[in-house]
Amino acid sequence: MQTPKKIAIVGSGLVGSLLAIYLRNRGHVVDVYDRRPDIRKVEFSGRSINLAMSPRGWRALEAVGIDEEIKKIAIPMDKRAIHTPDKPMYYQYYGKEGEAIYSISRGVLNRRMIDLAEAAGARFIFNSKVWDVSLSEATVQVGESEKGEWTPNKYDLVFGADGAFSRVRHKMQRQSMFNYSQHFLDVGYKELTIPKNDDGTHKLNKNSLHIWPRGNFMFIALPNLDGSFTCTLFLPFKGENSFEVLNSEAKVASFFKEFFPDVVDVIPNLVEDFFKNPTSFLVTTKCYPWTYKDKVALIGDAAHAIVPFYGQGMNAGFEDITVLNDLMNLHNDDWSQIFKSYQEARKPNADAIATLSYRNFMEMSNKTADENFILRKKIEAWFYDKHPELWVPLYTRVTFSERSYAEALEFGDFQKEIMDEVMGLEGIEEDWKNEEVEQFILNKLKEKEHLV
Amino acid sequence: MQTPKKIAIVGSGLVGSLLAIYLRNRGHVVDVYDRRPDIRKVEFSGRSINLAMSPRGWRALEAVGIDEEIKKIAIPMDKRAIHTPDKPMYYQYYGKEGEAIYSISRGVLNRRMIDLAEAAGARFIFNSKVWDVSLSEATVQVGESEKGEWTPNKYDLVFGADGAFSRVRHKMQRQSMFNYSQHFLDVGYKELTIPKNDDGTHKLNKNSLHIWPRGNFMFIALPNLDGSFTCTLFLPFKGENSFEVLNSEAKVASFFKEFFPDVVDVIPNLVEDFFKNPTSFLVTTKCYPWTYKDKVALIGDAAHAIVPFYGQGMNAGFEDITVLNDLMNLHNDDWSQIFKSYQEARKPNADAIATLSYRNFMEMSNKTADENFILRKKIEAWFYDKHPELWVPLYTRVTFSERSYAEALEFGDFQKEIMDEVMGLEGIEEDWKNEEVEQFILNKLKEKEHLV
Repeated sequence: MQTPKKIAIVGSGLVGSLLAIYLRNRGHVVDVYDRRPDIRKVEFSGRSINLAMSPRGWRALEAVGIDEEIKKIAIPMDKRAIHTPDKPMYYQYYGKEGEAIYSISRGVLNRRMIDLAEAAGARFIFNSKVWDVSLSEATVQVGESEKGEWTPNKYDLVFGADGAFSRVRHKMQRQSMFNYSQHFLDVGYKELTIPKNDDGTHKLNKNSLHIWPRGNFMFIALPNLDGSFTCTLFLPFKGENSFEVLNSEAKVASFFKEFFPDVVDVIPNLVEDFFKNPTSFLVTTKCYPWTYKDKVALIGDAAHAIVPFYGQGMNAGFEDITVLNDLMNLHNDDWSQIFKSYQEARKPNADAIATLSYRNFMEMSNKTADENFILRKKIEAWFYDKHPELWVPLYTRVTFSERSYAEALEFGDFQKEIMDEVMGLEGIEEDWKNEEVEQFILNKLKEKEHLV
Repeated sequence: MQTPKKIAIVGSGLVGSLLAIYLRNRGHVVDVYDRRPDIRKVEFSGRSINLAMSPRGWRALEAVGIDEEIKKIAIPMDKRAIHTPDKPMYYQYYGKEGEAIYSISRGVLNRRMIDLAEAAGARFIFNSKVWDVSLSEATVQVGESEKGEWTPNKYDLVFGADGAFSRVRHKMQRQSMFNYSQHFLDVGYKELTIPKNDDGTHKLNKNSLHIWPRGNFMFIALPNLDGSFTCTLFLPFKGENSFEVLNSEAKVASFFKEFFPDVVDVIPNLVEDFFKNPTSFLVTTKCYPWTYKDKVALIGDAAHAIVPFYGQGMNAGFEDITVLNDLMNLHNDDWSQIFKSYQEARKPNADAIATLSYRNFMEMSNKTADENFILRKKIEAWFYDKHPELWVPLYTRVTFSERSYAEALEFGDFQKEIMDEVMGLEGIEEDWKNEEVEQFILNKLKEKEHLV
């Protein structure tokens, strides 16, 4: 049992809301601040990529008994549906039978999570801007404007769950010995929507994550409960095919007609929506340390914002909470030790999933349609099937296991080395389901047994 | 000729002062803001490593005719003086005969530069804190405190020359698509002083940069005009030999007695000074872009703070000014183009010297005393002497040439590959001044001719 504390959480997003439930269940007093209005009372922003909940996320929900509740607003996707210009749409299954990731609308989920956190007894304070945090006092400074009057609210602990551009982290960044980086991709994104059919059904296969890979850009679509799909165009800001170039209705229309003709068929207001919806940025942020003594801790995107290409942003944030919870069980009231162990345990994994996510843009946009890549995946799947204990494919390890991201990155690099050699074997394209290939991989694995 | 502009420079350090001279010489109106008092009227801080001026720095001074003036306060150092525990002190010459870097006290130089900038007509506004910059307006917001009243001062252009923790950059960092990183070394430093002899002479060889390399820590001493040496202890913050461990007078005394016995002989107030002087941090910062339209530009440490182990921090900042000046000649009043070309030209070189400086800590603290390293340097020097057009050693290229840092880094890596192979040749320790070794290096160079 922990001694009840007075705890502020800055940020009422997914991680902030779930953390509030965990802390309330332990008897702490929890105030959640958000600079924005209550998301339950406003329209969604039209700049969100649908979430893909995977087992790391589900586990965190399960531990506080809300997984079944959330599953009601989720749609399982057990495969990628690949749309290429030159052949019919085809499927790539993500995992073994029954393995799926779950599409959830960020807005719908966030509303539900706030309801659940309120029901658990957390107090939400919306339209309340935290401008500063006194780290050694755990005091949040709240006010209308940065230059105006601030009201100091004193807590025992403060969690910064305030996202990629966290104010709490911003304050920590002014300390000496605080390492920090923010790196923007030269690719941005824009949300579009495929509406439902008149009869309420989905216009595309409902249980798939649809991808239109086009080299250095791509279009994706994830299903919603109401029959629609939330779509995202990922496109460079500058260059031949880019947001900069698509500056007129005619150019947008002809761009979609050339590269995504089947998308044109299913989005009636395509050009209008394109100019109505904002173009958004993609940023990776890294920092360290994540905590200040026994007073302040960063969690979720505030500690490690990543690009969305592995679908692990929310899952990684929820896993932060799982780890933090385990450490609360272990160290009880020793918050210094809880925070120290938390940041040491999570930092290498946050760095690893940042790297994996960054790399996965190329895999999604470019390689999913590549013959060589598809063969490589087939060989991996075949070997995995024969030796499930020796070869968990990288995507499976990241998405469907709860082994650490750091281990996944390391083992994934090792697998890539092996597969590079396998793909170089003479005649591999014609004949690969044989003992020679199997033995070749087995021998390579033996050279580095500790990693398996 | 440029049309005269009203220009604010934030920061009256070395780069800010020199830039003021350049801009005044072109007829611009120049105000230099500094949050600190006039350095000419206060004691130095006791936390500065002496500067080592090299040709990139001298060139920038020469172009505005102040190099001779500054040479009067500089002491040439043509060699490293290496102090190891197990043999007598010995010299490593930096370059060819007559090549030297110049030791200058940061405080003495900064005072002189402000005098010269004032004489050129720049206005210095000390004790004046710039809290914010309106990028699109080129307006600096000045006030007593961050939360207090600010006075907006409007300019045509603003330069941020306000160092590693630049407020101007801080404002730019809040924009989207601004990449930024700050990384602290786990090694800190402390200034100490070897006083002059009673007769005013130096206690150690005056024309040397003295190094006591000790693996993961080191002590260095650079000469001052007044007969003293400004010394720096570089030491990890934590671990076996670290600032954390040296927490009592007895421990400091025994640490120096064990590792730097000859230093104990020449610093009378060693232990007292150790606790009086602050322990300082070492940070590398990187960012991009460096400019905002035709309004705001970062320069020197504000754009690229580096660790001091290549002695190039000030030289790189001064070279920024040289490049900027060339571009003002080229593009006249087209400040958008000047700023665009400036950042594109300098960014790769700033990144390269950051990498080289970071790496050089290991070279200075560890390798300078290593037999293998010394042999390697001897072979390089011998080959350089035979083929000066084919092999400029990395240190020489960075320090004594004005070829770009980026090229130095790239060619240096290539040289290292070759020398790794040379050092692996059988019997190289016994016999290396021979045609076989010469031909081996020549053949390797031919494989990559474009780089020479």
